[in-house]
Amino acid sequence: MVQSSSFPFELLHADTKTKARRGRLRLPHGNVETPAFMPVGTQGTVKGLTIDQVEKTGAHILLGNTYHLSLRPGSELIAQQGGLHRFMGWDKPILTDSGGFQIFSLGDMNKVTEDGATFRSHLNGAKIHLRPEDSIRIQEELGSDIAMVLDHVIALPASDEAALDASDRSVRWARRCKESAKRSDQAKFAIVQGGLNADLRIQCAEQLIQIGFDGYAVGGLSVGEPPPEMYRILDIVCPVLPTDQPRYLMGVGRPIDLVEGIARGIDMFDCVMPTRNGRNALAFTANGPLRMRNQVHARDEKPIEEDCPCIACDRSRAYIRHLFQADEMLGPMLLSIHNLTFYQRLMQWARQAIEEDRFEAFLLEQRSKLEPTQESD
Amino acid sequence: MVQSSSFPFELLHADTKTKARRGRLRLPHGNVETPAFMPVGTQGTVKGLTIDQVEKTGAHILLGNTYHLSLRPGSELIAQQGGLHRFMGWDKPILTDSGGFQIFSLGDMNKVTEDGATFRSHLNGAKIHLRPEDSIRIQEELGSDIAMVLDHVIALPASDEAALDASDRSVRWARRCKESAKRSDQAKFAIVQGGLNADLRIQCAEQLIQIGFDGYAVGGLSVGEPPPEMYRILDIVCPVLPTDQPRYLMGVGRPIDLVEGIARGIDMFDCVMPTRNGRNALAFTANGPLRMRNQVHARDEKPIEEDCPCIACDRSRAYIRHLFQADEMLGPMLLSIHNLTFYQRLMQWARQAIEEDRFEAFLLEQRSKLEPTQESD
Repeated sequence: MVQSSSFPFELLHADTKTKARRGRLRLPHGNVETPAFMPVGTQGTVKGLTIDQVEKTGAHILLGNTYHLSLRPGSELIAQQGGLHRFMGWDKPILTDSGGFQIFSLGDMNKVTEDGATFRSHLNGAKIHLRPEDSIRIQEELGSDIAMVLDHVIALPASDEAALDASDRSVRWARRCKESAKRSDQAKFAIVQGGLNADLRIQCAEQLIQIGFDGYAVGGLSVGEPPPEMYRILDIVCPVLPTDQPRYLMGVGRPIDLVEGIARGIDMFDCVMPTRNGRNALAFTANGPLRMRNQVHARDEKPIEEDCPCIACDRSRAYIRHLFQADEMLGPMLLSIHNLTFYQRLMQWARQAIEEDRFEAFLLEQRSKLEPTQESD
Repeated sequence: MVQSSSFPFELLHADTKTKARRGRLRLPHGNVETPAFMPVGTQGTVKGLTIDQVEKTGAHILLGNTYHLSLRPGSELIAQQGGLHRFMGWDKPILTDSGGFQIFSLGDMNKVTEDGATFRSHLNGAKIHLRPEDSIRIQEELGSDIAMVLDHVIALPASDEAALDASDRSVRWARRCKESAKRSDQAKFAIVQGGLNADLRIQCAEQLIQIGFDGYAVGGLSVGEPPPEMYRILDIVCPVLPTDQPRYLMGVGRPIDLVEGIARGIDMFDCVMPTRNGRNALAFTANGPLRMRNQVHARDEKPIEEDCPCIACDRSRAYIRHLFQADEMLGPMLLSIHNLTFYQRLMQWARQAIEEDRFEAFLLEQRSKLEPTQESD
């Protein structure tokens, strides 16, 4: 039984030669034009940007991390402060993840039972038991527009047995998440698990669709597997998912991964790469990345990208390089702004290509342009 | 012989009960309303702020550091990039210091002879010899609106003999700076030295006035002496300085020091305190400083200052505290913005108090309000 969602996803146009979709997701705090990239605001801030600078990059929706925010400052405190939107000053949509991935990647000594996950806080070693119901309660306290169900994430490669166990548990936890949810103004997205096993992925997706959610995420990818493996899973999973609901590829990725994901029918993405790599002096551009510490930029009066409207591109490459050489905060700040602006521009270009039914050509063009190139130095 | 300056300083109003002055300094890149506070942009950036954020704090003029910029990226590179204004994207006035204070405080094994100062770069240990003529050439390459003469800075307390030697040398170096200057579009300010010795200070000031400069700075203060000692020197030096030229108290200081300096006839200030203390979670307010890591702020929905227009004060104290607890860049960024905004607002309040002939009352009020108070925690 597929039930209708209170958070309508309008499919504005489907590309004719690829599976790319141009859509619009209506959420309590506004509309999200898809394909969309969500900047990551792990601890109630997108690292290195003020909230007005985040808005100027063109972002429609942010991601917040349930794991981090629940440990510090605590979801109860954020609720008392009027919710995450008000706390951080962002009045557009927010998606919160469930904590599943962070328990897997950050929590010490994590142990999963049917009841929930037990782990030690990476901050102070405190022992925490998180059940699916807790994850939803925390996300309801945070007040996000979209809550993710708690999933059981495992390392890849994994045995079929371990992948099946985690996948089945993720389905049962998803049901408990849905059943425990109290807020009707918060969309719930399920997460398709199943490792790199096609049958498991399809089975997991079908079971989640039976339960019925407002959107479907593909989880457990971009954890070290080669990109073609990720693309293969998307080729398998996306056709199973409802066409009239949004699809979210979690934690992905490089600019080319976004374009490849869109070509396979993905609508939403999040990743720390634009800010993390920006802090490390890597600038994304339409012609591949630039390493801004390189000597080649020392006297270059050109901006990082001539046609980019961001404030980093008001300055020269020479200035940006100087900031990194001098270990000034403004270097990471400006490159984080630039990279997030680039990701949003890439999504804008993709949306336009879909609207104009030329996404296949766009995909081919991006494959040749976005691949990392080694700069001479 | 006092010569007229190409950089007119208009004395708009003199307070009747104190020596406070309301003025306007005309420089190639615009007017500076005095009393004025100059944010410090040591390495071509005010730490933690984008250049548009610096402008929004209300700053009319920035300070750049000749020592740092000449070592990295080099004044020749900045000249090739169109000068410091264009390099960092600031089209209002810039004052550059001469490097004297940094040689004293940062350079290893610094040795002063009559020809100049020899020191090792704090970056790479390279041996550098800087003469007064070099300092002016570098500042001309940077293209600042105001160049400072190279002075011989010594540690306090110092013997009268050492203070006299440094003071006399500073006068001779000031003359060499003036004689070597080629740019007519750059004001030259001399620096009054002489330690805590009143006679030396007066003698140094009179000799510099004889040579003739566009403005006069009081240097060698705020290097560890008690504030009353600094105020005493200002009481002695300011009356000797020309009334129709700007007076600059270098490297000062706390908010109350600015107000005390204005009361004694100082027109310009610079200090790293607003940004450095901001990075360390100290917020300046009209009612004294707040330590933003304190537990007392954890659930406080109030902004740092209710009437402050800065973007930090769009958020709650609880949020600012969370950012520092979580070690997020946005904490230092927002408090640097707030503190610089506070310093500019303090100057605005001071200018208005002078215009309205009530600076004495303003001074008394600030003495009771600005003194550090210990928060309960």
